[in-house]
Amino acid sequence: MNGAQALMQTLTDAGIEVCFTNPGTSEMHFVAALDDQPRMRAVLCLFEGVATGAADGYARMADKPAATLLHLGCGLGNGLANLHNARKGKVPVLNIVGDHATYHAPLDAQLQSDIETVARNVSPGFVRTATQTGTLAQDAVDALQVARGRPGQVATLILPADVSWSDGGQAVAPPPAPVAPVCDDTTLESLVALLQSGARVAFLLGGQALREAALVSAARIAAHSGAKLFSEVFPTRLTRGAGVPAVERMAYLAELASVQLRGFEHLVLVDAKAPVSFFAYPGKKSELVPPGCQVHTLCSPEQDAAASLTRLAQALGVDALTPPRSPALRPSRPRGRKLTAEKVCKAIGHLLPENAIVVDEAITSGLMLPKFTAGAPRHDLLTLTGGAIGQALPNAIGAAIACPNRPVLALVGDGSAMYTIQALWTMAREGLNVVTVIFNNAAYSVLNVELSRVGAQEAGPKAKAQLDLSAPGLNFTALAQGMGVPATRVQSPEGFVQALERTLSTPGPHLIEALVPPSLSGLKLKLLPTVLESLEGLPAPVARFLKRKLAP
Amino acid sequence: MNGAQALMQTLTDAGIEVCFTNPGTSEMHFVAALDDQPRMRAVLCLFEGVATGAADGYARMADKPAATLLHLGCGLGNGLANLHNARKGKVPVLNIVGDHATYHAPLDAQLQSDIETVARNVSPGFVRTATQTGTLAQDAVDALQVARGRPGQVATLILPADVSWSDGGQAVAPPPAPVAPVCDDTTLESLVALLQSGARVAFLLGGQALREAALVSAARIAAHSGAKLFSEVFPTRLTRGAGVPAVERMAYLAELASVQLRGFEHLVLVDAKAPVSFFAYPGKKSELVPPGCQVHTLCSPEQDAAASLTRLAQALGVDALTPPRSPALRPSRPRGRKLTAEKVCKAIGHLLPENAIVVDEAITSGLMLPKFTAGAPRHDLLTLTGGAIGQALPNAIGAAIACPNRPVLALVGDGSAMYTIQALWTMAREGLNVVTVIFNNAAYSVLNVELSRVGAQEAGPKAKAQLDLSAPGLNFTALAQGMGVPATRVQSPEGFVQALERTLSTPGPHLIEALVPPSLSGLKLKLLPTVLESLEGLPAPVARFLKRKLAP
Repeated sequence: MNGAQALMQTLTDAGIEVCFTNPGTSEMHFVAALDDQPRMRAVLCLFEGVATGAADGYARMADKPAATLLHLGCGLGNGLANLHNARKGKVPVLNIVGDHATYHAPLDAQLQSDIETVARNVSPGFVRTATQTGTLAQDAVDALQVARGRPGQVATLILPADVSWSDGGQAVAPPPAPVAPVCDDTTLESLVALLQSGARVAFLLGGQALREAALVSAARIAAHSGAKLFSEVFPTRLTRGAGVPAVERMAYLAELASVQLRGFEHLVLVDAKAPVSFFAYPGKKSELVPPGCQVHTLCSPEQDAAASLTRLAQALGVDALTPPRSPALRPSRPRGRKLTAEKVCKAIGHLLPENAIVVDEAITSGLMLPKFTAGAPRHDLLTLTGGAIGQALPNAIGAAIACPNRPVLALVGDGSAMYTIQALWTMAREGLNVVTVIFNNAAYSVLNVELSRVGAQEAGPKAKAQLDLSAPGLNFTALAQGMGVPATRVQSPEGFVQALERTLSTPGPHLIEALVPPSLSGLKLKLLPTVLESLEGLPAPVARFLKRKLAP
Repeated sequence: MNGAQALMQTLTDAGIEVCFTNPGTSEMHFVAALDDQPRMRAVLCLFEGVATGAADGYARMADKPAATLLHLGCGLGNGLANLHNARKGKVPVLNIVGDHATYHAPLDAQLQSDIETVARNVSPGFVRTATQTGTLAQDAVDALQVARGRPGQVATLILPADVSWSDGGQAVAPPPAPVAPVCDDTTLESLVALLQSGARVAFLLGGQALREAALVSAARIAAHSGAKLFSEVFPTRLTRGAGVPAVERMAYLAELASVQLRGFEHLVLVDAKAPVSFFAYPGKKSELVPPGCQVHTLCSPEQDAAASLTRLAQALGVDALTPPRSPALRPSRPRGRKLTAEKVCKAIGHLLPENAIVVDEAITSGLMLPKFTAGAPRHDLLTLTGGAIGQALPNAIGAAIACPNRPVLALVGDGSAMYTIQALWTMAREGLNVVTVIFNNAAYSVLNVELSRVGAQEAGPKAKAQLDLSAPGLNFTALAQGMGVPATRVQSPEGFVQALERTLSTPGPHLIEALVPPSLSGLKLKLLPTVLESLEGLPAPVARFLKRKLAP
């Protein structure tokens, strides 16, 4: 068998059964080998950022990596932003990047570039160029072991065309599943002492600590000790909703996060980093841990978060305690004439089906989503882990392929959606059960907020034009139809509710374009910096009220 | 003034007056500074690949760089493919990549990544992270001097947010225009001797040697010496058409390029590299220079190609010779019921307006374009210099902004168009005179050819599905309308001619979606490898005939 065939067999034997592809000439032997392996599903994407974002979404839900198939350095470049999201989310991805034949590379043909250099940005843990057909399958297994270790990583295997097409390929048996260690006894003992000390303790849960089993253990610990549970601001995958223990997400706005963390004397990290602000702002601190608050680590991303939390619960003697769970509570049907982002979020909470996967890249429009879905049926939430926008539509593809029987809801701002809008075509081609909601507010709304926050308030018309998407207005209904996805444009609460009810009960992909005003507009936007700055000095109940009004 | 203001003034003083942008929070001070400089035009793009491809197209036509404004490593990653095309085309581009504040970077926030590493892929000549507000403008001038040197380069200046927002910025006076040396006397003497020896000589012209002045000198030399003039396969900018000396482009298919070069004893490179095949193929040579053919260099990309050609013409005493120029000759109006890619190309030759800029990324559908436009009115042709598809629509934006009074025609395959389809929105927003023609053949047609050429003929249904774009079919008319560009779908030769006539005479952007069958389909496709392989052994007239039928 040739290299590509050996690689294909090795991957499928190891359980890698989905490949998100955007191939070119140098990948044609891998493409030809697809027909040798009925277990390998190849999902064609029209742009590499869709393929990498789909692999990210797939692995978040399947708990194993998909492969991507990319075309040289430029294909990898196009896929970089969503690989960045995967890297920051500790999500396993196996990139197979085709390259020129080994003897062709020194000739500096048109597509020649330094692929390894680009790859190191997202694959610090594994970048290798295969050099021999006979050892290609072992290269793939090595890459796979890095990818699916703890933490999950993006691993990049560069595959020269001649290594792929030459005979002498040999499949390699599937490697053992990696096992992550749990927290050590010393850590455990000191945390037990801390939790029994009566000090004010918060937990910051991230990564694997946001799945239900881990949340149950954490909720037991919190119920027993009075500790507060926070989730990192952008969870890779957070299980939540009715019947699941609740956890409060850290706010995106540093000013609000400071309010959330105020007064805690100890912060315990569980598969998470000490929180920092998303961006830096003139004259403001980037570190969000309050002065005097001591940071501890129950377990690092290299360790097993769920098992570590269970051990802690056992050590506290609360592993059989019935933990508090979120009550079932849906918001009412939104009413009125005018559609707003808040009403869209309310309608989603009103209708969210059982066992849904919600991919949230709604940015400012999604501010009220957590509140309205807190008591909706149990669902998984996937978010923008690395801040590289253009994640939601591709993530939704991967999630729908990993979980074909679960409804997927992708919530996306208009600006974000345009980075990887080509994803709609793959949804149509594969007949995926994805309902995409576009919040079309004709602006990069979050940048209007940020423009003030960085102290550049006196923006003139040219600056403001850089944040405006209204001339011409985007018509996502037409865009969706151009890629074979049925779409509806709505501008009333009732219209949105009807469209959501209908699309959730109809198989295949659908898009709902919700025409909404910016969530933080006019006076609210102008006042925001002032309000936020004064939160610190306000009486607690007032600050809490404003926080609820303004924050996720 | 702050760093961003000093930077803005320095750039505009140096003649950099266009910036293609896709900003985020870390770029907000640069955005705010736009209103301080009326000379700086900021062109918003919805995806970074559009911004970088527009900067490429702009510089090809303006002969000076534009700036790009990109958001951290992920923004640069999204822009990488079209920067690759610029790098390979020796096109000057100045990237300004915003970064976290210097003190924020070590905190590894969500968007933190190693930007310099990514940048080195496309900016080997200049990557620098600014560290001080006071020296930022000098950093920009240093970057600019590398970018607009000879050869043109992509230079990347990474701009941390605090370096941008801090006070203490100082503008720097515009640097002197770089001057490139001409070829030396020894080279000149040996080439004069060669050209007077009666040997069979071909010139391979690339880069700056494909502008009219250089072509006139080359044509004088050729007319005098009997040398043959070739252009590199993917010219950065080739001036051609009626009244311009003709040059034969090297073929994309190595098999055809070998036929073109057969029998030449000497190949003289002028701002070009010795030709190699685009990809490697099993059992075939990648170098295209025939055995025994000696390669010479008149001037390297570091030297002034036009001046070097003039010197050579002077040394031969032919610098006053009237060179042969292409006669004016348009094809007739295409007829018949069925629209084909060939008929679209014919219609373009029939109607091409005076002084047009043609951006060609039509891949297989454009095979007949060179033939049908050889005698059309004088025009500039921009092509896919680096092979990274998704170049034409962004290039067209840049060309139209550099040359607002020239009609721009972007010819794009359906597969290629989808990589940077967001470009249509910027065309509408800026009201650019661009007519986009999409060859919609519902396939990655070139890959059907390549699949056979790499020896993977026995492709099964899964492999073939990877090259198929028909399920669902893309509707580019809907996509264009979704982004504010008026569009027409045509399926007859007469329909296409009418649409082209109308759109060329109506200001603003338009899109024509031509529904065509694959150019190399069915029997033709099946026979192609065999035909190409036998070309070498065929009698010259037959080979010439087949070459004309199959090649650009």
